Order: sequence, then structure tokens, then C-alpha cells
Amino acid sequence: MANVVVLGAGMMGTALCVPLLDRGHRVHLVGTHLDGEIIRAMEETGVHPGLGCALPPGARCFPVEQLDRAMEGVEVVALGVSSAGVRWAGRALAPFARPGLPVLLVSKGLHWDGSCLRLLPDVLLEELPETLRAAIHPVAIAGPCIAGELARRVESCVVFSGREAAVLGQLAALVRTGYYHVRTSPDLPGNEVCAALKNAYAMAVGFGTGLHQRRGGAAGASVAMHNYGAAVFAQALGEMERLVRLAGGAAGAAAGLAGAGDLMVTCQGGRTGRFGRWLGLGLTLDEAIGQMAGATLECLEIIRVVGGALPALQAAGLLATDELPLLRHLYAVALGGTAVNVPFDRFFGG
Amino acid sequence: MANVVVLGAGMMGTALCVPLLDRGHRVHLVGTHLDGEIIRAMEETGVHPGLGCALPPGARCFPVEQLDRAMEGVEVVALGVSSAGVRWAGRALAPFARPGLPVLLVSKGLHWDGSCLRLLPDVLLEELPETLRAAIHPVAIAGPCIAGELARRVESCVVFSGREAAVLGQLAALVRTGYYHVRTSPDLPGNEVCAALKNAYAMAVGFGTGLHQRRGGAAGASVAMHNYGAAVFAQALGEMERLVRLAGGAAGAAAGLAGAGDLMVTCQGGRTGRFGRWLGLGLTLDEAIGQMAGATLECLEIIRVVGGALPALQAAGLLATDELPLLRHLYAVALGGTAVNVPFDRFFGG
Repeated sequence: MANVVVLGAGMMGTALCVPLLDRGHRVHLVGTHLDGEIIRAMEETGVHPGLGCALPPGARCFPVEQLDRAMEGVEVVALGVSSAGVRWAGRALAPFARPGLPVLLVSKGLHWDGSCLRLLPDVLLEELPETLRAAIHPVAIAGPCIAGELARRVESCVVFSGREAAVLGQLAALVRTGYYHVRTSPDLPGNEVCAALKNAYAMAVGFGTGLHQRRGGAAGASVAMHNYGAAVFAQALGEMERLVRLAGGAAGAAAGLAGAGDLMVTCQGGRTGRFGRWLGLGLTLDEAIGQMAGATLECLEIIRVVGGALPALQAAGLLATDELPLLRHLYAVALGGTAVNVPFDRFFGG
Repeated sequence: MANVVVLGAGMMGTALCVPLLDRGHRVHLVGTHLDGEIIRAMEETGVHPGLGCALPPGARCFPVEQLDRAMEGVEVVALGVSSAGVRWAGRALAPFARPGLPVLLVSKGLHWDGSCLRLLPDVLLEELPETLRAAIHPVAIAGPCIAGELARRVESCVVFSGREAAVLGQLAALVRTGYYHVRTSPDLPGNEVCAALKNAYAMAVGFGTGLHQRRGGAAGASVAMHNYGAAVFAQALGEMERLVRLAGGAAGAAAGLAGAGDLMVTCQGGRTGRFGRWLGLGLTLDEAIGQMAGATLECLEIIRVVGGALPALQAAGLLATDELPLLRHLYAVALGGTAVNVPFDRFFGG
């Protein structure tokens, strides 16, 4: 049994409490400054408003103002913040950090520092005291895991990645259950690049559904534009693999849980696919955003980051101009207002 | 313009006529002895009963008895038969074969000869006169392509694979259109193994949909058992890649059009996924087959072939007993009547 603090009471952070509680750990769930309403609702009703279900008995909820209290006796920290919240989480964690503290990260994304795409675990470390940066080895979670399903104990396979095998094994052993199947991998760059990019590419897979409906096709038809979506899916894996190589990840990462697995699940159940559908239906970017009722669109953020990095990567000779044609199109759609028109003839090295 | 004979008037063979006709070729569509009704219907109404749509003007339909007439002046042959029909097609083709005749194959499957998994293009060659076997270089089509969508000119990306670059390039150039995007690849074993196995694995992805409904979940819900299906999907790609290696294919084939792309499309629109859903719902194998109204279930055939080959492959030291846990489970379900219980803990080398 360990004392675990989960910082961030969004859907994924909260869902992660379920296997932790089922394993008998003492869990403190701390909302960020954006989670005030969620923490209040959970204290009053026990139910997480986004997940629509309650946690198993034993979790204690804290607002961010009570982080100090929640952190008393902490042995393991899990960060359930969005990619934009990683620096904040690092600063919040800093006063409590100590050498060897196991830190688990559910955030998915990449940062661009002007010359290099940075992984979120490394961005997190930058916010910790300099003396601790070599003594803490964050572990990142990737793989197909819709939070609402994990919270309901649906069989899920994920991959924990980190640079320090001992911490990796310890965290996996701590949270693994009969329904939460945790593999471990030393390939932090490969898995993190896939985890981040899948949102961008799931949007593109969704285009086909929208185009089909725009042409008068019925939703859920077996003859629709599945060929279109599947071609985009395969091209997405090829482009992810190229970006994995650029980041120094292992060959084959894109075909694994963090790549193909997470892309698949995001196309099935996620808001990103729905957002892509609106664009395929012919809505402008602003109209499509308007349809999403304020949902966080990580897809636009990752397209902005990676698409914006392309000119510098090309100038540095790291990437040719004819590579990543799908990502370039997504950048033009999401940042330049271009209409959806997937460049199939440039796919697969064409 | 070329004189093209398409032998086999099933959905895929007939759909392939659409880009051929759009490119201005003279197309003769010849039914097999199983396609009598289809040919009669097409001659009377113009509409293919399975596809539910008509071919563009210019195609001529022939019953199998008129194969001789259809073959007059033939320059290119496309075989649109099922995997079980490949030997028959080879024998039917033999009297008309000549050195250098371009042959295109839409059939997907593998044969087991007792010591080796054989590719269908090689099985086809066995039925041709011995003097021709080194002088004909069949080209196989793989990739995500639902016939009903190709027949309606939905954007589709496929890969043509063959051992002879000149024939490959010639056939791709002959049929490529603005909506039928043809890539070429020398990796015949890699792409053919993926094309064959995707039916087996799509059945497994469908289990999750059935299990979800069995537990009272609504069809199409965004919180369902998508995590389950996506984990199966990623494991499937890993197992395909292992089988590709066994067959001497190129690394990464499973992540491409023939693997991930075709698996994705089969999970979306195909009968194989529906069949898997019935099994996930708890029906016995015979009950599930009964629900499919006589549809050809290529998934059962490929599971029988490859699953049945495993003991010999292990005995030959080509495969370890803990490899391919998902395929082994599918074999137990499809041949041994075992209930669906996917071994997630043995996935990803666990």
C-alpha cells in the first residue's frame, strides 16, 4: 500500500484513481485551479461530473488550496493535467519533490523550444529544482485508454515509458490490476511522440465521416467512406513513425499501443474524431470549434506545435519538404483555414 | 487502352472494373461457376446484386461457359476469386496464359502445405504449365478497399505487390485513377500475410462490441469497450508483424496499408467484425455462423490455416509457444468452441 497523490481531477486523472484504489492504495485526488467545480461536486455527490460515475470508497478529494495537506506522507505522485498544465504542475510539485520520488504522467503532448521538440516529462523536470532533475525519473502513460471506460473497469492495455527501469517497474506493479494491463517500455520518446500526435491524426480520420454525411450518406452505413478513413489511418502511422525517428524513438513504436492503439480508440470514442467530422462536413474552423461546446481540443494544440516546427526542422536538414504530407495538410486546415482536401497522391512516399 | 478480363464477378472483382472502365480499358467480366445468378442479373438490369449499383458503360459480362470468347485478344487478366478459388482460377487461366501475361489478384489468404505457409500468387502459379511459372509474375492487391465504396469511387489507397518491378509498374499505371490511388511494393510476402490475417484479427476487434452489448451497453456509445478493441487492434499488428517476419516480409508491413489500413476498414464496414460481435455477445460458433446468413467467412478459413500450422512451426523452431497469444485464442474459439476470453496479460510479450 502506498500513499498516492493524483494532481488534476480531470477525467483521466480521476479514472486512474480507480485501479489505484482497487489495489488498496491511499489516494488523495487534488483538483487544479480549473477543477474547483469538480472537487465540490465530488465532495457533495461522490460522482465526477465528466465521468458520470463515482470512485470506489476510500479516495479523498482536495481543492488545490489544500495541496499541502494532501501531500502529507506522499510516496507516489500522478499528474493528471493537460499538456498546457505541465509547467504549472511542475512548479506545484517542486516544494514536495525529493530524490527518487516516483512521478507518473498522464498528460499527452509535445513542446517546441525553437530548435527541438521536447517531451512533456522533460518539460516537467525543468520546473523542478536543478539538483533534483537527475534524481527524478518521470514515467509517462500512453496507449488506448478512454477515461470513462477505465473508470468502469473495462479491460485496457497501456504502456508506461521511462528512462529508469526500476521506477518504471515499481509504478507498473503498483497500479496493475486484472483489467488495467500495464506494459513497460524504455522508449519514452517513441511512445510520447505517438501519444501526442494521435490527436492530430484522429481528426483527419474523422474527415471521411463528415464528407460521407455531407454527400448525403447515412451515419453508421457499412458502405460509406471507410476506405478514405483507413487510408488516412495507415498514412498517419507512417508519419508518426517518421516523427518517432526524428525524436530518437525506437522503430515500430507507431504500430504499438501508443500509436495504432491510441489512434484507434481516439477515432472510435473521442471528441477529436467528432471535431474532424465537422470539418469534413464543410464547417469552417471557427464553426467546428463552436460545435464542440468548449471542449479542450488537444488536436489543434499539437498540430500548431508540430506543424509550426516543420520549417525549422527542414532548415536544419532533419526533414524533407515532401515528408509528412498529411500533417502539413492538417496544419493548413487548422491554422490556415484551408478546406479539407486530403493529398492521397502524396501518401506513402508518392 | 488494354483488353482486360476480370475473372470472378464477386463484389471485389466487379468493383475493380470501375477504375478500369474509367481509364478507358475494354473490360470483360467473367463470372465463375458460382456467379451465374450475378451475371444474369447484370445482363438483365445492369446492377450487381451485391454491390447494389451498375458498372459504368462499356463492360461486357460473360458466364463462365463463355470464357473462351471473353479471353479473345486478352492483354491483362485480373482474378477476383475467393482464396478457395485460386487453384480453380489457375486451371481456368492456364490455356490462355503466355510468358509475360500481366495477372492481377484480389484474393486474400494463405495456404499451408504441411511445412510452409504459401502465398496465393505462388499457389496460382502451381496451376499454370511448368514452363510458364518463371515467366508470369502475379501482382497482388492489398490495402483498405471495401468493394461497395470503390464501386462508388470513394477515395481508396491500395498497394500492388509483386516480385517483378516492370509488371508491377505496368499494372499500377493501367488502373490508377483520381480516386483509386495505387502504390507499388516489392514486399509480396509482407503485404500478403497482412492481407490474409486481417480477417482473423478483425473478428477479435469485434468481440469488444459484442461484450459491451451483452453487458447492456448501447451500440455506438462513446463510453463502451473501445479500450478493449483498441488493445486487440495493437496486439493484432504486433502478431501480424511477427508472421510477416516468419514469411520473409519487410519490417513495418503491419503498420502499412495492407496491415493497419485493411484491419481498420474491416473493423468498420465488414461482416468479419459483425461476426466477432456475435461471438462477443456470447453466441456459440454455430449460432454466430447462423446469424451471418450464408456469408463467406474468410476469417474462419485463415484462422484454421494459420492456427493449424502453429504446431509444425513450433516444432521446426520457427516460433515460440508464448508467441501469437491472440491468434491462439482465436483458433481455440473458432475451432475448439472455447468462449471468448482475450488473454490481455499475455499481450505485448507479457
